[in-house]
Amino acid sequence: MLIVGELINSTRTAVGKAIEQRDKEYLQGLALRQVEAGARVVDVNAAAGENEIENMKWLVDIVQEVVDVPLCIDSPSAEAIEAGLALCRQRAMINSISAERQRWEEVLPLVEQYRPGVVALCMDDRGMPNTVEDRLRVAGYMVAGLTAAGLSEDDIYLDPLVKPLGVDTGFGMEALDSTRALRRKYPAVHGICGLSNVSYGLPGRRLLNRAFMVMAITVGMDAFILDPLDQAAMSLLAAARALAGRDEFCLDYIAGFREGRVRA
Amino acid sequence: MLIVGELINSTRTAVGKAIEQRDKEYLQGLALRQVEAGARVVDVNAAAGENEIENMKWLVDIVQEVVDVPLCIDSPSAEAIEAGLALCRQRAMINSISAERQRWEEVLPLVEQYRPGVVALCMDDRGMPNTVEDRLRVAGYMVAGLTAAGLSEDDIYLDPLVKPLGVDTGFGMEALDSTRALRRKYPAVHGICGLSNVSYGLPGRRLLNRAFMVMAITVGMDAFILDPLDQAAMSLLAAARALAGRDEFCLDYIAGFREGRVRA
Repeated sequence: MLIVGELINSTRTAVGKAIEQRDKEYLQGLALRQVEAGARVVDVNAAAGENEIENMKWLVDIVQEVVDVPLCIDSPSAEAIEAGLALCRQRAMINSISAERQRWEEVLPLVEQYRPGVVALCMDDRGMPNTVEDRLRVAGYMVAGLTAAGLSEDDIYLDPLVKPLGVDTGFGMEALDSTRALRRKYPAVHGICGLSNVSYGLPGRRLLNRAFMVMAITVGMDAFILDPLDQAAMSLLAAARALAGRDEFCLDYIAGFREGRVRA
Repeated sequence: MLIVGELINSTRTAVGKAIEQRDKEYLQGLALRQVEAGARVVDVNAAAGENEIENMKWLVDIVQEVVDVPLCIDSPSAEAIEAGLALCRQRAMINSISAERQRWEEVLPLVEQYRPGVVALCMDDRGMPNTVEDRLRVAGYMVAGLTAAGLSEDDIYLDPLVKPLGVDTGFGMEALDSTRALRRKYPAVHGICGLSNVSYGLPGRRLLNRAFMVMAITVGMDAFILDPLDQAAMSLLAAARALAGRDEFCLDYIAGFREGRVRA
């Protein structure tokens, strides 16, 4: 189960401000705490505000001073992604590519050059996917294109694109059914998603996010972009991973309990 | 989603003692609080200790004094089940029948006479089921027999028989895959399970139980025998139900939040 720590994101007010003020200590602390809590990749996003490229370079540098896990370079700008990738001391991830023509054409050359792990959003120029079939079609295009660009299937993380449950009662199951279908069709390709879209506009968002995470694990999701400092979520994740048969003899679950990472 | 409140069970020390001492106030309080917390059926079990039949009759009477939901008459003894059923003022449930020959032959006449809802354990004289196919075979026998005895499919609650994860890392997915298969093959028949078997022998049992409940909802389980006073579990249940598309416009989830039943 791959955990990408989501907290160093400039759209979060405190983080945006810390980037602007070059508050290295705060941001390095966030990186460290996420890794200590179980993140195996740290997402870095500097897209809010001005000077994204400069901010991205600074962020990548200061985060690498304190943690040695891969970074996930997160931006709507291919230029900012490239600036981040160029500074990564080890193989990174990109968040994200999609099958939208412009995005695809801008980001694919970076995939060829840097061979990063890639979050691939199941979306193209027809817009948000509405069915399992939409996602399978877009995923087919992306998996073919990304492997032709030199990636192995193991480097690809398909994001089914989770839409807000508050908009349509069926959007939870649509995302879960899509995840199951994607994992079945491409068993060597990973499934990934963020946890906050599904709860947008509803009360108790963290509760919905946690429940959705457990449901997604049930249908085969094996990577999440989440807040690893949410101990209730991380505890449920350890439990669900064990229940899904992905923790031999429940060893990690039991160790987590002993170490205090996992709490009932 | 049917919630059967499990707390009035004589194998729990405090309850066993309360039954023995005829502590009506304590037991009626347990019944009331479970219904207030969302139980739509109250399980009553007097099987521990002596005088089960007498205790069962007393329990059924005092519980019906304070709550007007159906009771679930829970005993390994067909005689005790009959004593309980005979006193129920409304249609009850039985916990449980199985395809084990002796159990089947003892309990089926009660099904014919009282037409209760029936928890049907997917198990026969070959012992505990080991595969999805084992459960489908046993379920087929029971669904045929119970409908021949006069029940509708809607009166039947198939329990896939959940085995302890601590014994085998695959037992969680075996139960979940079985639940999905049973619900697909018999869509008008319900799926039910208790939540405590899966975590037997492991630390953090409530955490595992809650995660398993959310996973079971994901694959179609629509009834649980659980502790409705576990607010974390009930909150996750409301969230998972909404995410599974079984709460139109998330109205119940949102109302639960407003009323304080559901907490993040």
